[in-house]
Amino acid sequence: MSTISDNRADRTSLLRWISDEYHDLNGTHHDVLKASPSPLEFSRLVHISRPVLMKNCEAPDALSRWSDSYLIDKMGDAGISVAVTPNGRADAVTVDANGQQYFAEPYVQTMSMSNFLATLSSGKSRSRDEIYYLQSQNGNMYRSSYFDLHAENEPSEFEALREDVPSEISWCSEALDRPPDAVNLWIGDGASVTSIHSDPYENIYTVVRGAKHFTLLPPTAGWCLKERVYPHATYMRSPGTNALILKPSSSEVPGVRWSSVKDPTVPGSLPPEAHPIHITVNAGETLYLPAGWWHFVRQSEITIALNYWYDMESRGTAWVWLNMLRGLEPPPPGNDEDYVAEQSDKHFELYQ
Amino acid sequence: MSTISDNRADRTSLLRWISDEYHDLNGTHHDVLKASPSPLEFSRLVHISRPVLMKNCEAPDALSRWSDSYLIDKMGDAGISVAVTPNGRADAVTVDANGQQYFAEPYVQTMSMSNFLATLSSGKSRSRDEIYYLQSQNGNMYRSSYFDLHAENEPSEFEALREDVPSEISWCSEALDRPPDAVNLWIGDGASVTSIHSDPYENIYTVVRGAKHFTLLPPTAGWCLKERVYPHATYMRSPGTNALILKPSSSEVPGVRWSSVKDPTVPGSLPPEAHPIHITVNAGETLYLPAGWWHFVRQSEITIALNYWYDMESRGTAWVWLNMLRGLEPPPPGNDEDYVAEQSDKHFELYQ
Repeated sequence: MSTISDNRADRTSLLRWISDEYHDLNGTHHDVLKASPSPLEFSRLVHISRPVLMKNCEAPDALSRWSDSYLIDKMGDAGISVAVTPNGRADAVTVDANGQQYFAEPYVQTMSMSNFLATLSSGKSRSRDEIYYLQSQNGNMYRSSYFDLHAENEPSEFEALREDVPSEISWCSEALDRPPDAVNLWIGDGASVTSIHSDPYENIYTVVRGAKHFTLLPPTAGWCLKERVYPHATYMRSPGTNALILKPSSSEVPGVRWSSVKDPTVPGSLPPEAHPIHITVNAGETLYLPAGWWHFVRQSEITIALNYWYDMESRGTAWVWLNMLRGLEPPPPGNDEDYVAEQSDKHFELYQ
Repeated sequence: MSTISDNRADRTSLLRWISDEYHDLNGTHHDVLKASPSPLEFSRLVHISRPVLMKNCEAPDALSRWSDSYLIDKMGDAGISVAVTPNGRADAVTVDANGQQYFAEPYVQTMSMSNFLATLSSGKSRSRDEIYYLQSQNGNMYRSSYFDLHAENEPSEFEALREDVPSEISWCSEALDRPPDAVNLWIGDGASVTSIHSDPYENIYTVVRGAKHFTLLPPTAGWCLKERVYPHATYMRSPGTNALILKPSSSEVPGVRWSSVKDPTVPGSLPPEAHPIHITVNAGETLYLPAGWWHFVRQSEITIALNYWYDMESRGTAWVWLNMLRGLEPPPPGNDEDYVAEQSDKHFELYQ
């Protein structure tokens, strides 16, 4: 294995060159399709690896059926895992009371669908000090073992809703020649955001109710996102007061590499060379979010969505390309200067 | 547009890192298919962008029909353009009598198919001082205007052979959603080689008679090939003796960027980090040679081949990736130290 020069300025100038070239060639264009693609059409789109908004796809039954009362009726008393944070930022860089930055995982609370939806509906005021977001991302509808084992009865918290959710997207599975790695259900409101990050998965994202607002940056813009390594922490409930407290993990838990940009929609959060693409996905619409694309996601009302993660093609150049664009080496630890906190907090209040 | 650091050592260390990572992930593997792929299967292979040898493809009629007598009969007295050089290296770096290096284009001689085939058949001895190679590469069977205009009668030197050669490869055109940019006929013998280079085209290469020996390197190995800029020259016939002479072009003709590696199959021509793939394509077989792959090609007997060039996908990352791998900037002028001539000349004699 070769080693890379220690000259960070040179590497940044290279990444900036790539980013400029990519933007010169592709601009901020994204395709909009008026129907689902064929497997071949989608295979071509995966090769181009740009976001695509698809309108009028075959809608899952969820789309027409999932009223609150239907969901409550179907789910009954079954326990579901809900992320709870004081600020709506599960899996994000957070500053604790002492000003120390952490990558914070949410407290996970088990509750009924009925209680969860009641919490969302009642919780739109700013006075709420706990934000609930169903975002478990562990294949909560279907996980890879479901496909590996052809085990129709592979358990899921949302088994009662499976009849409304196809286990795969046929045109995507056929294009990629594989089943999904995970299918996830997301339910949240305007108080929750998904902090900017990228996944090594091809992502098919369908909105069932409400609307998701995506801010997207291509893999070539990774150098603009100031990835740093942050110590790991998890929200817990205080044994006495039951209040949420952020508990740093033991020093054996490795730090988490994460972007220091809290909200890329806040002016000044990104250098001028970054050209974010803003796409709103409304109910009944589907977004193809290619592997390695950076995404920050929010919603302005109660929003239900399904996403299908497919393993990206590991043969060929894509892995090398994405690794190179992330800077070739682990980033330094995060610090106050990197983390754009104050500015974002102000904005965050606006849509809370 | 950003500028790139002038630190050439840093850039080389980056390209070496990419090259190592790519090799670690992909090795020297190439797929072998037992039949033509479907358009969707081929679309997936284009995304992976590795060479694929296809056996038992639907063969063009040329395969069963193209005996010498058939070709001579069909072509009659029609003039065809044949590349003539003293060394079998058309479109390659060549050293003139004064030791000066040039990128040399061949003398182009118009002759009948009958005369051309007689020259090839009689010319196997080393005493031959003129090497003939039908390799015009300008869409000599079909060029892009044929597809643009749907002009069935768009002229070609080889119009009489068109009934044996489909104008496109259906599974490739459908996968890439476009017709070919050029379809070329190649006829040559063991005295001719194609010097190592890469094209920004997806290439479908079918051997009709004989066998082509490909030495392939991925785009990530570009840094091993010592691209340099060489002054341009063309072989002419001396007005007096009719002998071939190499005539340097005027200084207004820009230099040509070309690899300084004369024959990558000669031990020592490549650094140990380069891992060439050797694939022999026999009559009836087809090679998918992805855009940007470096290829050196020879044949050991009279060999007839057809190749289909398709424009590569220009959207997305592929252009940026290939440009970056070629070093981001024009290379320096060539010199004696770069050009591995003596060693290769010896080897060249061996198969001449």
